[in-house]
Amino acid sequence: MIATTPKPPYYAVIFTSIKKSDDKDYAEMAEKMQNLVQKQQGFLGMESAKNETGITISYWKNLESIKLWKDNAEHLVAQKFGKEFWYENYKVRVCLVKRDYEF
Amino acid sequence: MIATTPKPPYYAVIFTSIKKSDDKDYAEMAEKMQNLVQKQQGFLGMESAKNETGITISYWKNLESIKLWKDNAEHLVAQKFGKEFWYENYKVRVCLVKRDYEF
Repeated sequence: MIATTPKPPYYAVIFTSIKKSDDKDYAEMAEKMQNLVQKQQGFLGMESAKNETGITISYWKNLESIKLWKDNAEHLVAQKFGKEFWYENYKVRVCLVKRDYEF
Repeated sequence: MIATTPKPPYYAVIFTSIKKSDDKDYAEMAEKMQNLVQKQQGFLGMESAKNETGITISYWKNLESIKLWKDNAEHLVAQKFGKEFWYENYKVRVCLVKRDYEF
């Protein structure tokens, strides 16, 4: 799915990850987070693709809404489990989307 | 693979796509472009993941280097074929990476 996002500027958080395990608990948590993020203030959309590398990009209205999601209590639990059990490593990049175009 | 990128600020081009066909020609062109982009001035790295949705993110030193790659003659041919044969639709977002962190 290609996210429908408003006219720039807006923000993107690129989450690139390599997993070390992919168990039932991970799938449940991922689904829970996907539902939860959509209720967050300032959330604009999400795109995801996975093979050996996983890329999830979430789009946001502003930096404040990104911070609120990072500090969300349930999301903090997910982040802790992610580091402990599921991810070999990951990188997060916070970006300002300056322009976009589509075909 | 998680790209090794320098300390921000730098740029990211997010290319999100839905394909309509995935033939031998596409695979050849994708490989050719992957080799070519790495020789571009200002290219910093690339990350890619694909299932129904494809996401490819290339990282760049500045906007000038992004423009030079967009206008590269061989890349222009690939873009034309992409629109004509391979992509149902796609979206390109040009972003300024403001901060990053990793685990």
